[in-house]
Amino acid sequence: MQVDVGVFGATGYAGREAVRLLSVHPRCRVAFATGRADGHVSHEEGLSRRADAYLLALPHGVSGSYAETLRASFPAAAVVDLSADLRLPTAAEYAAWYQHQPPAPALLGRAPYGLTEWSRDAVRGARLVANPGCYATAMALPLLPLFAAGLVEDDVVVDAKSGATGAGKGPREDLLFCELADDFSAYAPGRSHRHIGEVEAALFAATGRRPSLTFCPHLLPVKRGILATLYVRTPHPAAALREAIAARYAGERFVHVVDAPPRLSDVAHTNDSRISVHDGGPGRVVVFSAIDNLGKGAAGQAIQNLNLALGLEEGLGLPSLSGGRA
Amino acid sequence: MQVDVGVFGATGYAGREAVRLLSVHPRCRVAFATGRADGHVSHEEGLSRRADAYLLALPHGVSGSYAETLRASFPAAAVVDLSADLRLPTAAEYAAWYQHQPPAPALLGRAPYGLTEWSRDAVRGARLVANPGCYATAMALPLLPLFAAGLVEDDVVVDAKSGATGAGKGPREDLLFCELADDFSAYAPGRSHRHIGEVEAALFAATGRRPSLTFCPHLLPVKRGILATLYVRTPHPAAALREAIAARYAGERFVHVVDAPPRLSDVAHTNDSRISVHDGGPGRVVVFSAIDNLGKGAAGQAIQNLNLALGLEEGLGLPSLSGGRA
Amino acid sequence: MQVDVGVFGATGYAGREAVRLLSVHPRCRVAFATGRADGHVSHEEGLSRRADAYLLALPHGVSGSYAETLRASFPAAAVVDLSADLRLPTAAEYAAWYQHQPPAPALLGRAPYGLTEWSRDAVRGARLVANPGCYATAMALPLLPLFAAGLVEDDVVVDAKSGATGAGKGPREDLLFCELADDFSAYAPGRSHRHIGEVEAALFAATGRRPSLTFCPHLLPVKRGILATLYVRTPHPAAALREAIAARYAGERFVHVVDAPPRLSDVAHTNDSRISVHDGGPGRVVVFSAIDNLGKGAAGQAIQNLNLALGLEEGLGLPSLSGGRA
Amino acid sequence: MQVDVGVFGATGYAGREAVRLLSVHPRCRVAFATGRADGHVSHEEGLSRRADAYLLALPHGVSGSYAETLRASFPAAAVVDLSADLRLPTAAEYAAWYQHQPPAPALLGRAPYGLTEWSRDAVRGARLVANPGCYATAMALPLLPLFAAGLVEDDVVVDAKSGATGAGKGPREDLLFCELADDFSAYAPGRSHRHIGEVEAALFAATGRRPSLTFCPHLLPVKRGILATLYVRTPHPAAALREAIAARYAGERFVHVVDAPPRLSDVAHTNDSRISVHDGGPGRVVVFSAIDNLGKGAAGQAIQNLNLALGLEEGLGLPSLSGGRA
Repeated sequence: MQVDVGVFGATGYAGREAVRLLSVHPRCRVAFATGRADGHVSHEEGLSRRADAYLLALPHGVSGSYAETLRASFPAAAVVDLSADLRLPTAAEYAAWYQHQPPAPALLGRAPYGLTEWSRDAVRGARLVANPGCYATAMALPLLPLFAAGLVEDDVVVDAKSGATGAGKGPREDLLFCELADDFSAYAPGRSHRHIGEVEAALFAATGRRPSLTFCPHLLPVKRGILATLYVRTPHPAAALREAIAARYAGERFVHVVDAPPRLSDVAHTNDSRISVHDGGPGRVVVFSAIDNLGKGAAGQAIQNLNLALGLEEGLGLPSLSGGRA
Repeated sequence: MQVDVGVFGATGYAGREAVRLLSVHPRCRVAFATGRADGHVSHEEGLSRRADAYLLALPHGVSGSYAETLRASFPAAAVVDLSADLRLPTAAEYAAWYQHQPPAPALLGRAPYGLTEWSRDAVRGARLVANPGCYATAMALPLLPLFAAGLVEDDVVVDAKSGATGAGKGPREDLLFCELADDFSAYAPGRSHRHIGEVEAALFAATGRRPSLTFCPHLLPVKRGILATLYVRTPHPAAALREAIAARYAGERFVHVVDAPPRLSDVAHTNDSRISVHDGGPGRVVVFSAIDNLGKGAAGQAIQNLNLALGLEEGLGLPSLSGGRA
Repeated sequence: MQVDVGVFGATGYAGREAVRLLSVHPRCRVAFATGRADGHVSHEEGLSRRADAYLLALPHGVSGSYAETLRASFPAAAVVDLSADLRLPTAAEYAAWYQHQPPAPALLGRAPYGLTEWSRDAVRGARLVANPGCYATAMALPLLPLFAAGLVEDDVVVDAKSGATGAGKGPREDLLFCELADDFSAYAPGRSHRHIGEVEAALFAATGRRPSLTFCPHLLPVKRGILATLYVRTPHPAAALREAIAARYAGERFVHVVDAPPRLSDVAHTNDSRISVHDGGPGRVVVFSAIDNLGKGAAGQAIQNLNLALGLEEGLGLPSLSGGRA
Repeated sequence: MQVDVGVFGATGYAGREAVRLLSVHPRCRVAFATGRADGHVSHEEGLSRRADAYLLALPHGVSGSYAETLRASFPAAAVVDLSADLRLPTAAEYAAWYQHQPPAPALLGRAPYGLTEWSRDAVRGARLVANPGCYATAMALPLLPLFAAGLVEDDVVVDAKSGATGAGKGPREDLLFCELADDFSAYAPGRSHRHIGEVEAALFAATGRRPSLTFCPHLLPVKRGILATLYVRTPHPAAALREAIAARYAGERFVHVVDAPPRLSDVAHTNDSRISVHDGGPGRVVVFSAIDNLGKGAAGQAIQNLNLALGLEEGLGLPSLSGGRA
């Protein structure tokens, strides 16, 4: 039986990637795609089209109300929201990070936070899933097992670097080829990026601890991929932390602990995460975490969650590389 | 009066940049350049050519003995060594970081470490200068005033990203266009990169403290530029640290404290350094430090030192941007 | 039934792509791969490993003799040679273009030239196939129908631009990231590139005409993709030429005539060819032909040929994009 | 004596380059710069500011009327217009190529077309100069001597490739980093690009012949540089054409005939042009012509013209590379 999926926001980078992945998915097909381009229907029209599942790749502040409408109109359908609108547990946290009220406050805390390897049971069969942010996924995958095992202190530094698809497709002057090529810089230094909130909430939910991350995102002159370099304080050697992460993800199909620092090309065009762990200066361990921001960081993980929500095998239609590079 | 400069290793990226800068220098001219390419003499032949000054852009392990020979043959000439061979104060430190004995142990500790803004008096009129490493320059410029003012603790994390000219021109498969383009990764994670040694030595020389840095260099898919993101522990707000750095470099022509995180394009093709300071999580301040690895990180600073050694105005022939981008 | 394929030269770019494509092929699997890297056997050892089919991605001058050995040892197996060693019909033509004798002269003219859409019947069930060159494929796809229809004169100009994987993985200084990035230039201008020979031979074989191409390849600072811009002399308007090409490829799965000039991103990571046709100055029509040099230009077409040789459906396991971009 | 120059449109790529070049010019200084950014005055305000010279880097359709106003207000000042508004000899030709009436029809044909090496006498002391287009400069430099010497037929094919600064700084989606990186394609194929008009007019003015060019511009994923590959029909060998071009430009400071195909990096960040000539197929010669689209193709040539208009040495303040690469 074929599953009909409606994709909202299919002309943006995450939505386009979702359409591409679904086009080779053995069980799903794209019933319709909304967006500003030929071959797409309007967002409005999409809201009245019945499908078995919906992927929302719309801007935050908008996406949440679409989720609400679709839930009401088609209660049997599964909805995966790639925006931030359903990720935070309370309206207060949402408003603090996004400087406006959440568009669907009634849904906050009711959709599982779909970092799949940590919320598999809640996502299975769910009708609504909050898909994590790209940076949040890259950070949370190594941090959750380390905090859960009590191996690290609260003083965590994350220096993250993202490909430019993470900044979206809006025609901004600062995103022009001639502005980004050959260049590199940080933005939102320190404590201002919104993905901090969802990682801290996820850590609190999983471990009861509320560390205060220092997080600096940087923009790479590449199209896709995130490398997060995490500096954790710990009395333990790197080997102990590596072991804890490897044990937690043993048997996972998409999360791999590797020896050498992972490269973007190891994970590009896949749903994989690669993590390596190394000794730093005294009391410091360095952790590298690489994902494709459009794969495990957005559309890939959304389909992983969709598969679970629909009762399908979790990895269906999702590319992974055990050995070679993409 | 024209100053004749001999450039050794002029076919590598740093040497080529030195030749280019000297070609528009109002007082210097390239007397000869050594290397493997048309229009160059052999290294051997260079050793017998009298000049007013010499720039050595040769591999470490080799460069030091050239410096020794030139010092002996032409004692009146100024020699600036861009390699690591003269940077560390003792043979033991050299051997610990480079895994072999220094080629010119007798010269260790006798050449000023040419981080110009910190060694101007020693470099002025010197006959031998140890030009700092590129990462070391990017790190030391903000760290020295912070340590000197006693504003930060010893737990320093440096996440550095460099353009690929920093990896040299040797025909290695991992440096091919098709291997680096669209890609990004760390190398030498934690405590293994050799520039750590010279920064720690410089901090010790200036402040008597010996912090143990955690340092991760990453390779950017761009040709030139270094951005170092430093995470320091401090009880003080970012404003206090910014003020200390700005005060130390007030009046400096090439070191600029700026408000927004600096971009590689702000410093590319210049001898400038740009530094910004931002609040992070509790007890954490983030410092960005950008230079051109071939400019202030190599050939530019070498000529800045050469100017001083020769009694010329320090900034002669060196590009700088007060306002616009390169 | 699973088909075991041995891949020779699997660490080069074309061989690696072949391995990657086979890893998701529904009917084939990689029995062994030869090359210089972990997980690979030596070329020597490969020659004694029985398999159902072999792909040779070895340098020309070497590959042909491997083909000969494999043909003798395993006469039932299908061999697709990606090198140039079997492409030209006579030893004289080979020697003229390659400046050395062909390694397997006895095989010349005995393997069909696998431009699949033009040699499908000969390739079906064949035990030996000469896979075309990347530039040759890009040129021949539009030129063959135009010459076959008698629509163009012999004065053809081809200005071709290729991604750097086309230049191979040898650690040459001129292929370093810092040498190619931000740069662009032609090489082998005029009449010197070897792919000219196979296109002219293919045109002669198909039409009895022997035009003398002017062909200039250029190296793009991108990893994959070829765009050939062809300037043909013709008394007919672009519409007539477009119609002839479209008619010839109607129903083809991988060759598409499009309206707007194709982009590399339209064909990257696919086995597709896209062709568009436009009016130029008086008597001139401009034809754009885009392929992925590693896809339809090498490994993709090799597997398309392999499928046919093995009696499988021609497009099995080969990515194609009808609409969206890769 | 210092020359005060007003720069209009200084936030675009050409205007910014002009400001940068003037900032190191030994005799000129930027009196004011107009544009949308801090430190700039409005275009309106610029019109009332007296200066010794003006550079107009404004959009066509606008720039011409600014030229007219400045000519009227400050008749003693020199005005160099980088736009297309004054380049074509008649309103009819302008309207044919630009699909609207020229903004300053009275000035058409009254400003010398500033391809400096061909209009030096007219530019010297001129109060108004029409600065050529970037593609036009790249094409006209080799074509003019070939047509003047009667060495080539009218059937000329030009395949040109430009860096993305040539497309301007408007925030268009198709110019985003994620749309251009790793990609390549043609635009305006055949006979539609407007620079064709000015080259044909320049050829007519110089030689009385009116060839009908076939011209295809392509967009490179690099920031700056143009490489034009010209395919000319001729009964003569490449050597004869090379000789004719070399003879015409003997002694020129910025136009160099070289042996190997020029690279963008040979001319980037300079005012140089490099040209090479090679044999193609029968009756065909291939000519490569490389310039920096922001240098000799825009701001560099504008300052070359400005120097002449002001009675200064023509090359003052303009970078050139005799030997090495930029």
